[in-house]
Amino acid sequence: MKQVIHARCTMCGHTVEAAPETTVCPVCGGILDIEYDYEYIRSTLSKYELLDRTERSMWRYMEFLPVEGIGRTPRLRVGCSPLYKAEKLSQEIGFKGTLYIKDDGLNPTASLKDRASAMAVVKAEEAGKTTIACSSTGNAASSLAGNAAAAGMKTFIFVPARAPKGKVAQLMMFGAKVILVDGSYEDTFRLSAEAIDHYHWYNRNAAINPYLMEGKKTVSLEIAEQLLFKVPDYVALSVGDGCTIAGVWKGFKDLYGAGYIDRLPRLISVQASGCCPINTAASAHTMEWVPQEENTLADSIAVGVPRNPVKALRAIEESDGITVNVSDEEILDAMRLLGRTQGVFAEPAGATGTAGLKKAVETGIIEKDASVVSIVTGNGLKDVANAIKAAGEPLMLPPDMAKLRAALGD
Amino acid sequence: MKQVIHARCTMCGHTVEAAPETTVCPVCGGILDIEYDYEYIRSTLSKYELLDRTERSMWRYMEFLPVEGIGRTPRLRVGCSPLYKAEKLSQEIGFKGTLYIKDDGLNPTASLKDRASAMAVVKAEEAGKTTIACSSTGNAASSLAGNAAAAGMKTFIFVPARAPKGKVAQLMMFGAKVILVDGSYEDTFRLSAEAIDHYHWYNRNAAINPYLMEGKKTVSLEIAEQLLFKVPDYVALSVGDGCTIAGVWKGFKDLYGAGYIDRLPRLISVQASGCCPINTAASAHTMEWVPQEENTLADSIAVGVPRNPVKALRAIEESDGITVNVSDEEILDAMRLLGRTQGVFAEPAGATGTAGLKKAVETGIIEKDASVVSIVTGNGLKDVANAIKAAGEPLMLPPDMAKLRAALGD
Repeated sequence: MKQVIHARCTMCGHTVEAAPETTVCPVCGGILDIEYDYEYIRSTLSKYELLDRTERSMWRYMEFLPVEGIGRTPRLRVGCSPLYKAEKLSQEIGFKGTLYIKDDGLNPTASLKDRASAMAVVKAEEAGKTTIACSSTGNAASSLAGNAAAAGMKTFIFVPARAPKGKVAQLMMFGAKVILVDGSYEDTFRLSAEAIDHYHWYNRNAAINPYLMEGKKTVSLEIAEQLLFKVPDYVALSVGDGCTIAGVWKGFKDLYGAGYIDRLPRLISVQASGCCPINTAASAHTMEWVPQEENTLADSIAVGVPRNPVKALRAIEESDGITVNVSDEEILDAMRLLGRTQGVFAEPAGATGTAGLKKAVETGIIEKDASVVSIVTGNGLKDVANAIKAAGEPLMLPPDMAKLRAALGD
Repeated sequence: MKQVIHARCTMCGHTVEAAPETTVCPVCGGILDIEYDYEYIRSTLSKYELLDRTERSMWRYMEFLPVEGIGRTPRLRVGCSPLYKAEKLSQEIGFKGTLYIKDDGLNPTASLKDRASAMAVVKAEEAGKTTIACSSTGNAASSLAGNAAAAGMKTFIFVPARAPKGKVAQLMMFGAKVILVDGSYEDTFRLSAEAIDHYHWYNRNAAINPYLMEGKKTVSLEIAEQLLFKVPDYVALSVGDGCTIAGVWKGFKDLYGAGYIDRLPRLISVQASGCCPINTAASAHTMEWVPQEENTLADSIAVGVPRNPVKALRAIEESDGITVNVSDEEILDAMRLLGRTQGVFAEPAGATGTAGLKKAVETGIIEKDASVVSIVTGNGLKDVANAIKAAGEPLMLPPDMAKLRAALGD
């Protein structure tokens, strides 16, 4: 893999060969970062050649990814999600700049996490594994189960017994072996860790696995390409454990390193007011984050103890980023806004970036003529209960035309 | 619109100008069919030019569609859904031929109906309308609401009061005005018809509107292009009111007419045993279909009184098609099969085509070395209740490694 130089520890700076199972620093246990030979990438692929490529998935960016290739194993079509110019939404929030919505809820299992799971499956294959495991009931689990099923790889997924039945059903439909653990989330995580260790399964638990982030960064490669490498002033997105914002930043940095783009965007890190440990630390310009309660209906970002705070905090700091916290009511409002103005149906965490952008515009934190991309990270069909909460009540009428006309003020 | 010659009545043969609001024959009230100037299409666009096109939506086939263009109005990215080679699924069902799964559940509102609704919105704009209406709670309604929202068009959607709250919520998230009618489906339909008439809204009720089918046919244009114009022996899909199978057939016929393909596929029309009026008539080679009860969990194809039986029956007949009826158990089984082997999560009606294909293979109706495309028409996230039914029970364990090892037979 000539494009990858090595993995570097984000804590102690130690470098180590980027092997598929090397996920933490052998010296200090710190999180690793994959470093690329930008000269090599530049000499292998120009951005004009890239624009001509026919591959329509995240694997069109092969030269920027830590893999040799993906072989002939069947894969789901992950990535190449649409980027919509959002003029109506801009008007409604009084934004005079240029706004784009990147709808990553249109991935195969309906969230941005497909990008990470698709990468995890390929790295597991490289490591010679036939089984991957994780403990989760959320988008990580369903994307792992779906992408592994397509590739013919087995999955074990550990979930607390209280997990919603619908989410468990989706995992089982993908053929995952689901272990319902009669205990807390902590018990569940511990059992999964023991089992992964015992059975030598590939581990998708670690949010710290640097390859997952390398998958996620493809969303930025796409955004840049879709804008013909004209980088937006800001990229807004929701933040939970920190992996996604770190991946988004890595994507732009790699493009910048390889000379595909001539500047970097500023990140708008949006968290729920009820659970915002990363934003709290970032706005105080410290790496010393403090665990928080998880008081938000946006379950995909309800992470009181983020697993990737270092990379996330650095990404926000390096990008001269902005932090915005939003209430659950503002999140539900952004769901309605995205649906009504753009025809985009987002889960709560998926609409949180847009909620933050709206607030940033209203409070004047960002220039009214800026260019912004807001990433929708997950599909509203994932969480119909909250859509019902957001939707309000419809008009109820008897089957009577006169009553209808009266109701419509006619 | 030089590519369109006229609309021809499928009943009396009368021809009429293809205007946006001309949806039935002015002479006999029969369903219309849009006829194209294949010579003109051929002279305007070659299949090689088509392959080079960068537009990644159903609108890449503009020369085959009854529109001048789609202007600068924002649109959802409908179409260009993935076509997966399904080797593992083939193995599991003992099929030696070549099988592809076309996953149309990855459309913006998660069903093939987006193709019809996207077209309806453009035709409504051409007709100078600013509001579209229909009565439905299913995929037609959500796709209409989503596609209309993107284009800035208003929608009124009439649903019976008993409609599931989740589906109503999705419509409302797209900003549709939802009228819950306290009455039967018949009452609801009647009120919507009266209102459409009174307010001069564009009508998406009519399954007979020929333009909807022209949108749906793009799934066949894509299949052909994705197979580099090598037509499969069979195309399997679920059938409800008959519009989709008619659209699929029209797509292949138009490609054949324009000389893009050199033969036509045979259609495999799959219905639920509990509701199969079209297959019953088709297998008796008669156009005289008889209404049936709607006894199936596959709600999207539970249509006892199909609204487009003529075109559907002709499509099956003309293609020397095959009819297969499947039980609800076979549908749930196909959902599991698609998920487990291909990582594709289908709603019941979405998996019905695959259920029929499996049965056709098992009963030897189709050759073991044939090439087949099975269309998945809707996403499993649309109907989580039935996914739970299909999924079965997961393994429940205390957080104890010894118990896990015992359960896994280790």
